[in-house]
Amino acid sequence: MPDTSTPRTELSTLGEFGLIDRLARRIELADPSSLQGIGDDAAVIDPQGLIQVVTTDMLVERVHFDLAYMPLKHLGYKAIVVNLSDVYAMNARPRQVVVSLALSNRFPVEAVDELYEGMLTACRAYGVDLVGGDTTSSTSGLVISVTAIGAAKKEDLVYRHGAQENDLLVVSGDLGGAYMGLQVLEREKAVFQQDPNVQPDLSGHDYILGRQLRPEARQDVIAMFAELGLRPTAMIDISDGLASEAMHLAHRSGLGVRIYEEKIPLDPTTISTARDFGLDPTMCALNGGEDYELLFTIAQGDYDKVKGSPHFTVIGHMTDQASGYQLVDRHGGQHELRAQGWDAFLNKG
Amino acid sequence: MPDTSTPRTELSTLGEFGLIDRLARRIELADPSSLQGIGDDAAVIDPQGLIQVVTTDMLVERVHFDLAYMPLKHLGYKAIVVNLSDVYAMNARPRQVVVSLALSNRFPVEAVDELYEGMLTACRAYGVDLVGGDTTSSTSGLVISVTAIGAAKKEDLVYRHGAQENDLLVVSGDLGGAYMGLQVLEREKAVFQQDPNVQPDLSGHDYILGRQLRPEARQDVIAMFAELGLRPTAMIDISDGLASEAMHLAHRSGLGVRIYEEKIPLDPTTISTARDFGLDPTMCALNGGEDYELLFTIAQGDYDKVKGSPHFTVIGHMTDQASGYQLVDRHGGQHELRAQGWDAFLNKG
Repeated sequence: MPDTSTPRTELSTLGEFGLIDRLARRIELADPSSLQGIGDDAAVIDPQGLIQVVTTDMLVERVHFDLAYMPLKHLGYKAIVVNLSDVYAMNARPRQVVVSLALSNRFPVEAVDELYEGMLTACRAYGVDLVGGDTTSSTSGLVISVTAIGAAKKEDLVYRHGAQENDLLVVSGDLGGAYMGLQVLEREKAVFQQDPNVQPDLSGHDYILGRQLRPEARQDVIAMFAELGLRPTAMIDISDGLASEAMHLAHRSGLGVRIYEEKIPLDPTTISTARDFGLDPTMCALNGGEDYELLFTIAQGDYDKVKGSPHFTVIGHMTDQASGYQLVDRHGGQHELRAQGWDAFLNKG
Repeated sequence: MPDTSTPRTELSTLGEFGLIDRLARRIELADPSSLQGIGDDAAVIDPQGLIQVVTTDMLVERVHFDLAYMPLKHLGYKAIVVNLSDVYAMNARPRQVVVSLALSNRFPVEAVDELYEGMLTACRAYGVDLVGGDTTSSTSGLVISVTAIGAAKKEDLVYRHGAQENDLLVVSGDLGGAYMGLQVLEREKAVFQQDPNVQPDLSGHDYILGRQLRPEARQDVIAMFAELGLRPTAMIDISDGLASEAMHLAHRSGLGVRIYEEKIPLDPTTISTARDFGLDPTMCALNGGEDYELLFTIAQGDYDKVKGSPHFTVIGHMTDQASGYQLVDRHGGQHELRAQGWDAFLNKG
């Protein structure tokens, strides 16, 4: 929420066409496939001969975000990015988003502007048009629903179900950072609630805080695939944690999967912060979620294309279905992979 | 909510793949343009050479619906229909929907099943595939966000902005019924809350209750246009009330509009119920909303195509912009049209 020194304009002061026009004025459609944006019963898209992909995600206040430490601009940015990540995970290029908001009248117009500013900043950064949406009242918290639409040639699409036995399991970037960023924010919030005179201590945590508050979707990875002439056999984005996503790939492909703990890429800050919190860094990567990295499988014959890349890490391989979902620890011990992210999340409500 | 005699399965008892698999098993994709449904990062659609239209609507508990009198099955049905209505309003055919739900754990699995059953019933009725979505926790009420995707030839699309001066303003069906249905439901709820032993008296109100609880989108009207060889110059669906929608058409077309009160189609039940409540039936049609009829403009030369049709009523015409938005009453008096639906709605929050 903006501090009390900023002007507060009640949402109800905007007239019939007010809120829609206000938003529409700030938007210039950039992609030639966007024929009609906000202002009609529906947006209009010219597929230009490409296949369309569609994905949707809902963010709910006090479940997915806490406005105590999440600035509205960052929240808007993140709401767009998490959807674009799903489009990249199909090896497609996002071109349009539509956005629905439910907000209570505790939000002034200025707050809605900030939220949209974050969304539009993300749209510009990723070359995506905001072409429609719905804005409505809420009797309690803020709910943001984003649907992203992307395009690809049919032969370029990558599904979750395409992995083959012995394919290598590869991940972009590093894992667990977003989760550790959240832990730091939660800790400082608790300290602040006990004593509002204590300033939050966020020093030294820039990287993991950025991972939580301003995640990016890996459009660069999709571009690298094109450059490398690499087509993953299966792919998923990591929103719920590595364990859950690896199991999704295996499940949909009718296979098992084996991940080697020592290979899981972790940033040094993630490791040191996890230790400070008495947490196992590997568990943070496996179950933390919100890293928005891409997890994909490639044929062994494509290994040379990712070898030595600072962007990619081979963390395991696909096995036959009967071998199940396995984690091999640093001492060679085998453990059954478990996905705790999703269930823990549903139990929050 | 289901009564206490139905079994109650906690949402948290469904495992990692539980809720998604449970839903996916009930869905068979019917439209050949739906290449991939639930189960991947995104749904995949083959546009088959057609232009795509995209629209989204969010329904929020205690703002758009009250579970005290709205059965979950009806709610699911309505959530789909209101979105399809926007696709028809582009003179396009809906083919896919994606659905996001936020729900608290006061809802058992059985309640989610009922909600989806209503959605899938609507999908079957309109020949639409449910291809994706998101299910998440909510800390309070139920929120449903639906995005519908349709297809049309570019030359068949009808926008809000295409009306010309002197075009006739035409509406399908009749208006104000959904609003009066809501008034009856609210009255009986209030009676019930005062004395839970009093049975609700809904007799004689079947038509208007159906208009509120189970609205239909006018896919038949789009089919009639094709048969009649009629292409409206502009079109919008009536979700917020006739006044607001007529003003949208005029505003976007850079014109004025004139509506004749005596021409506004009203069902006899709507009129009699409005009188019982001490309401002006015309005002209910102008500002009530949720009728999901189509409001469109046609060239005067096309008048013969709608003349005498039981489905269409010419209620006015488009004027120059300077003439503004006018309602001509039964005595020939002119009044400025006002849209109260939308503003009243935003103030609810």
